Amino acid sequence: MNNTICAVITGPGPGSDAVLRLSGPDAWTAVLALAKRQNFTPETRRAYLFNIYDGDGLLDQPLITFFKGPKSFTGEDVAEISCHGSAYIKGRLLELLADKNVRPAKNGEFSMRAFLNGKIDLAQAQGLCDLVAAENKFSHDAAINAMDGKLSEKFRLVKDILSELLAQIEVRLDDVDDEMDALDDDYSLEALNRAAAEIKSLADTFRAGKFIKDGVKVSIVGAPNAGKSSLLNALLGFGRAIVSEDAGTTRDTVEDAFDYKGRKIILTDTAGIRAHALNAAEREGIERSRAASRAADIIIFTQDISVPSADAELWNEIKKLNKKIILAENKSDINYVPSGFEKQADAVLKISAKTGSGVAELKEAIVKLVNLDTVDARSNVITSAAHYDMLTKALAEIDKAKESVALDAGLELTAEHVRRALRSLKEIIGEVYADDILGIIFSKFCVGK
Amino acid sequence: MNNTICAVITGPGPGSDAVLRLSGPDAWTAVLALAKRQNFTPETRRAYLFNIYDGDGLLDQPLITFFKGPKSFTGEDVAEISCHGSAYIKGRLLELLADKNVRPAKNGEFSMRAFLNGKIDLAQAQGLCDLVAAENKFSHDAAINAMDGKLSEKFRLVKDILSELLAQIEVRLDDVDDEMDALDDDYSLEALNRAAAEIKSLADTFRAGKFIKDGVKVSIVGAPNAGKSSLLNALLGFGRAIVSEDAGTTRDTVEDAFDYKGRKIILTDTAGIRAHALNAAEREGIERSRAASRAADIIIFTQDISVPSADAELWNEIKKLNKKIILAENKSDINYVPSGFEKQADAVLKISAKTGSGVAELKEAIVKLVNLDTVDARSNVITSAAHYDMLTKALAEIDKAKESVALDAGLELTAEHVRRALRSLKEIIGEVYADDILGIIFSKFCVGK
Repeated sequence: MNNTICAVITGPGPGSDAVLRLSGPDAWTAVLALAKRQNFTPETRRAYLFNIYDGDGLLDQPLITFFKGPKSFTGEDVAEISCHGSAYIKGRLLELLADKNVRPAKNGEFSMRAFLNGKIDLAQAQGLCDLVAAENKFSHDAAINAMDGKLSEKFRLVKDILSELLAQIEVRLDDVDDEMDALDDDYSLEALNRAAAEIKSLADTFRAGKFIKDGVKVSIVGAPNAGKSSLLNALLGFGRAIVSEDAGTTRDTVEDAFDYKGRKIILTDTAGIRAHALNAAEREGIERSRAASRAADIIIFTQDISVPSADAELWNEIKKLNKKIILAENKSDINYVPSGFEKQADAVLKISAKTGSGVAELKEAIVKLVNLDTVDARSNVITSAAHYDMLTKALAEIDKAKESVALDAGLELTAEHVRRALRSLKEIIGEVYADDILGIIFSKFCVGK
Repeated sequence: MNNTICAVITGPGPGSDAVLRLSGPDAWTAVLALAKRQNFTPETRRAYLFNIYDGDGLLDQPLITFFKGPKSFTGEDVAEISCHGSAYIKGRLLELLADKNVRPAKNGEFSMRAFLNGKIDLAQAQGLCDLVAAENKFSHDAAINAMDGKLSEKFRLVKDILSELLAQIEVRLDDVDDEMDALDDDYSLEALNRAAAEIKSLADTFRAGKFIKDGVKVSIVGAPNAGKSSLLNALLGFGRAIVSEDAGTTRDTVEDAFDYKGRKIILTDTAGIRAHALNAAEREGIERSRAASRAADIIIFTQDISVPSADAELWNEIKKLNKKIILAENKSDINYVPSGFEKQADAVLKISAKTGSGVAELKEAIVKLVNLDTVDARSNVITSAAHYDMLTKALAEIDKAKESVALDAGLELTAEHVRRALRSLKEIIGEVYADDILGIIFSKFCVGK
């Protein structure tokens, strides 16, 4: 922690300006040395227009803002150089700073220092990382809620319930002379139930949270020539896949994502599945189609409903995957011959991939089937699989603690389960952690944060 | 000029942070409205950590720095929002600002406002634009010299010489009662010569300046299998072009650039030229090879010097192009049979593309042939063709003015030529300009500057 780090924190590619962030004990002196300012103490949070020199020559005239620790992002002394955006200037600044013993920051190293200095907890750090990566309104809202500390408040609330209970138990375990009243089982169970209910309400948001963060995977399947590629294009709003009158046009799976009212939906168009493929390429396409369906959250089973159905075999194969299925009855504007699968589907929609009718309703159906229509991402939503795991573990320990109370198995055992549940909560916000885990978590962050 | 403009001024790729710049009368109020700060007057040049809201929800917690005009980059009120770098946040900020009547800036619009508000002159604006685009030390140094106003000082020096002379002439033209002494021809000629010498010394830097800004174009030609592609790879330092034992491997021209001690050198490897091409593809390759040679600043004529030469026809063809030619005698480590072209070349180098011997010397020879070895880019260098044109025009007018003095053609005529020369100088720094020209100049700038 004693050394000073730096990184370009703005996007690569041509920009008129770029920002370099430095953090550490030498951040100010290193920058002031490049600006040839001796005996100068900058005011914190003030932007100075300084010349930066490369030897005797002028390298740039950046705005430099200084932040005195601990009132800075990392808690250390920070300087931000807002320079011109040429690759030459950025590269040369990093070289000149290296000469002053300022080394390039690793992924997430600024956030890690902020965490270690107590500026943010681990759940907030994760929110910050997610915020930078957020592509749409829902993922943004969930991330900023976490970054802002609202999610952490909830974790702390549960933690406080369990801590209080544990304190009550431990004081009695220490009470060797047996001078205290015995702990009321109802008190213990009430506390455990309250904690469990809070955890469960959080853990339950993960199903939506996962979709919010990673998007909903939707696979379009059906017999050859059912209109799958036309439907993909209609959903995306542009001609992504090649469409032709010939059955079996699509071979490679075609994947693309769209944003529906702030939610990310990832579509995969696949080869039409039929029993007797014409050739090896089609066979391979059908194999990939099946793989895409297995990986999907929702399957859109597309049928040409204008002619009698002969898709029973394929329908049964798809049903066995145990996924949410939307039956998209295509060409319903031409003729309508119900296939009989209607009652087995999770949703049925008459559509015309050609005219676009029913496509808006289909988008709405996708969102509804994964409960993304009722979620408010600005409330607390769990989007991290690690958090979900730890909540599930905590819940299991609380169940065991309740069992221990009910069976009168002794305070020692109850205390151990409560302690383990507490540990999971503390790990989420980073009150306890293993150093190597910390390194792994922050290495997934971007550089500059 | 009355409206407020904004743009993301940092690179478009993924970055942990991004900066939005606003300039105009409503810059502060628009940003303060997004931050829901009423009756708050920010201090200039201070960074504030504000919440920015999207409706009721939190959009981001950026650092915002306010700059009170006229002491700002554009001379107007400016605000810079240093937000998190997600595409969602950047896009949403632009939308929210649009609701506050802040419109996206056009290319170069911030610089144009800085120019119109007298913060920088036109030559400095051009330097700023070049600075952002600079890829290497030499182009950077020339650009920052211009941005810093050093080049403008030189233009103003010449302008002052001519202005003083013109004033002396005009006061005599106004002297209808003939009360003043006649103007001494020696005085006029001395001033004109001094101005001409200054202009010439500037204009003379353009040959190098053009190479500094755009790079030196070097075309590698020679008979099939002379080792052209191997030489390209050796110069670049990596296997850019496919190399084989078979003559005629290269067909498409292969172009790539490298940096040699801060100068950009653009290499083109071409098909070997021989009288009887095997097929249409080779013929097309040879045509492109000839085109590349015509466009080159320097031609490296590559020969397999280990065998007797049969390249006389090609050599004569290349000689006719009237370019600087470096004779690169390849495979000189195997055997040496002088071709006889040595005395006609501008430089001769024994090389081995395979072992890399002689390649460093070849790079040095390239730089020397265009006089880039003696240039100090930190002194005044003209890199703009438009500036060069205007200097040439000014020089021609000064010559005519000198002629007018020498021939005693009258003060009126001398004055007119001096006025025209002056106008060219004034156009370079933007003391006079046509509105449409200004639009064209700044539209070539990047967005955000």
